[in-house]
Amino acid sequence: MTDAVLLGLLGCGTVGGAVLRLLEEHAEEIAGRAGWRPSVFRVGVQDPARERDVPADPDVFTTDLGSIVADPQVEIVVELMGGVEPARALLHEALRNGKHVVTANKELLATHGAELFEHAAEAGVQIAFEAAVGGGIPLVRPIRESLAGEQVSRVMGIVNGTTNFILTRMTEDAMTFADALSEAQALGYAERDPTDDVEGHDAAAKCAILATIAFDSNVTAADVFREGITGVTKEDIAFADRLGHVVKLLAVAELEDGQVAARVHPTMIPRAHPLAAVREAFNAVFVEGDHVGELMFYGRGAGGDPTATAVVGDIVHVARELGATHVPLPPAVERRRGIRAMDRMEGQYYLCLHVADRPGVLAQVAGVFGDNLVSIKSVWQEGTGREALLVLITHRANEGAMQATVAGLRGLDAVTEVRSMMRVEGEGE
Amino acid sequence: MTDAVLLGLLGCGTVGGAVLRLLEEHAEEIAGRAGWRPSVFRVGVQDPARERDVPADPDVFTTDLGSIVADPQVEIVVELMGGVEPARALLHEALRNGKHVVTANKELLATHGAELFEHAAEAGVQIAFEAAVGGGIPLVRPIRESLAGEQVSRVMGIVNGTTNFILTRMTEDAMTFADALSEAQALGYAERDPTDDVEGHDAAAKCAILATIAFDSNVTAADVFREGITGVTKEDIAFADRLGHVVKLLAVAELEDGQVAARVHPTMIPRAHPLAAVREAFNAVFVEGDHVGELMFYGRGAGGDPTATAVVGDIVHVARELGATHVPLPPAVERRRGIRAMDRMEGQYYLCLHVADRPGVLAQVAGVFGDNLVSIKSVWQEGTGREALLVLITHRANEGAMQATVAGLRGLDAVTEVRSMMRVEGEGE
Repeated sequence: MTDAVLLGLLGCGTVGGAVLRLLEEHAEEIAGRAGWRPSVFRVGVQDPARERDVPADPDVFTTDLGSIVADPQVEIVVELMGGVEPARALLHEALRNGKHVVTANKELLATHGAELFEHAAEAGVQIAFEAAVGGGIPLVRPIRESLAGEQVSRVMGIVNGTTNFILTRMTEDAMTFADALSEAQALGYAERDPTDDVEGHDAAAKCAILATIAFDSNVTAADVFREGITGVTKEDIAFADRLGHVVKLLAVAELEDGQVAARVHPTMIPRAHPLAAVREAFNAVFVEGDHVGELMFYGRGAGGDPTATAVVGDIVHVARELGATHVPLPPAVERRRGIRAMDRMEGQYYLCLHVADRPGVLAQVAGVFGDNLVSIKSVWQEGTGREALLVLITHRANEGAMQATVAGLRGLDAVTEVRSMMRVEGEGE
Repeated sequence: MTDAVLLGLLGCGTVGGAVLRLLEEHAEEIAGRAGWRPSVFRVGVQDPARERDVPADPDVFTTDLGSIVADPQVEIVVELMGGVEPARALLHEALRNGKHVVTANKELLATHGAELFEHAAEAGVQIAFEAAVGGGIPLVRPIRESLAGEQVSRVMGIVNGTTNFILTRMTEDAMTFADALSEAQALGYAERDPTDDVEGHDAAAKCAILATIAFDSNVTAADVFREGITGVTKEDIAFADRLGHVVKLLAVAELEDGQVAARVHPTMIPRAHPLAAVREAFNAVFVEGDHVGELMFYGRGAGGDPTATAVVGDIVHVARELGATHVPLPPAVERRRGIRAMDRMEGQYYLCLHVADRPGVLAQVAGVFGDNLVSIKSVWQEGTGREALLVLITHRANEGAMQATVAGLRGLDAVTEVRSMMRVEGEGE
């Protein structure tokens, strides 16, 4: 009989319940692959009397979460509460008591990750967080460990299922943003207050975590440039389609001149790019490395069962390393690399303008581009008699120059409206 | 300064050289993530005097491979020789001497994996083989460990880059198999004798390894049904396109009624399936699990640098677990599950026939299907006056019944030729 390793769970909602069921159902395989038999010793909840359909002894439930992180018998603390406090204080206490930590808390890690990683390093324990990005998709550990001998140059991901569902509906069914959002809400993919998803906050937190592990340098959510999808129109999607592109909300983290650039924004990518095939609420993270080339990890980025699978995988990994002679370092706690400001970014741009439909307008518009040294790659104009729609794609240009171009265009009498500007990724010049 | 862990390499070709360079270039990150500093202590080669562009002391090279696996200072043996012997004997000797093993040798594992895994379990050491399937793509360890709490129901992969390159050229440039093969050979994607790739032997070995780790039951290359791509015609590809499908050489391993079915064959999959977007020489493995849903791992499946990245990742993982209190079990050594015979498989089929273009032929053909209880989903007929091309897609049917149908069709006077039969995967009924 394999020895037991005792777990203390903080929180027992959808994910916690699924974790308990997986540990029970697959006890034998887990013990074989972990070397230990993970055994749930304590589960911290608000209401221990609540009816729960989970395979756990009623005695394990407690409202005293502090007692779990202090219990000398608990070896691994599994935090599934979410939010910054009290999770942060409890995990510090767990680390202080020499316990390994498994957490799915992206918000906490994207804001206070460095202090927790530093504390774990001092305490000589592990902190595992596979479930914090990409739900059930194994990618944090592959990037950290399987690619340890690799210089990652760029990570590009679809890391928010809600917005990907909305953009898929807009693309495949020609829906407006508002209608697609309503459908996502009706199906339970979007919250009643969808701000966290549609404004890119959730994706920005995950982008910060991905940047930290990919580039071994501390990046927080506040370092990530963020633009949501509320401004994406049916027209943008239709023009993307004509260009052979699709629109995705991408989290991009890249290394440029030794600095980390991290950003979340709607992006046009070519239809042949592997990320373009990621539909509905699926997530995927595309990684480019100097030696390994291009990798992609694809799967369900959210949901109780997929997330629980990742949490159980982390428990297995931490258990495998119990008693190891040397404890490997957690991710970087220092800002080893600077953060590259967004206006120094270089990329291609899509611009959609409403202009007066009269001679000379295109020359004026093109003049503003030229003044800002932004080179135009292609132009379409669709006149309606009084007004015209003008769509332009640039060659690679500097973000600052592009912002100045947009400001200049807004200053032209002939330009009624700068409808939208979108970044274009994933193709050559 | 982190302690060193001493490595003994067996073989120093393309992959071995790339491993030495990665260990040198990324020494600091590797040490941080592994907890140890991997140090190359011995490299076994045929000709130590040969000029090698690798960052290694000339003194580490030796022709005496037996001395490496016996050396008391070596803790991890990294086998990059390929082939069954002498790799098999050397690894047994290494295990006997208590050394952990990292290997990229798919042929050895697909034929003698069970005996090596059993030996490793007895010796209480690790055997890691990320590079044996999918080159640089981290997938063996994610399936084994991150999905430890998961019941995988099916694994479907594009695991051979050469055949995927050929099929991509046939699809995108309407080339014949012969022309696409010539191009693959000219570009170095295919060997001069391409049998191992185009007849599916390479894919079958990888399929056996994937089935073993996914289902925790020993599966060997000999258990895998195998059909190569030499019979795939331009017509098949064109009809697949009309159906909204693409043709891929898939390795499929699935659990059916508690038995493992493992097969490699050309397959039609819908264009919207994530595997359909895997082009050129890329590989990808699609995993379906009860809780995690659908996952896909994508990247370069071959080449010195990608493969070396996986080998270095394995070295990092093995080092992390050095001295761990309990050694986790290697993959299954027993045949816990039976192998399901191919004629018991159920699936959808595509059939392309040349028939006489005269009244009553379709009724005869349909009669043979009906006699064998195979239900036809759709039919196209293209007449040329004298002869007609008849393409049929079935509903789900039994492979045995389908084989009987083909035999029956061959017996019809009106059927000039059964041009091709292909399995269809990845869509509903």
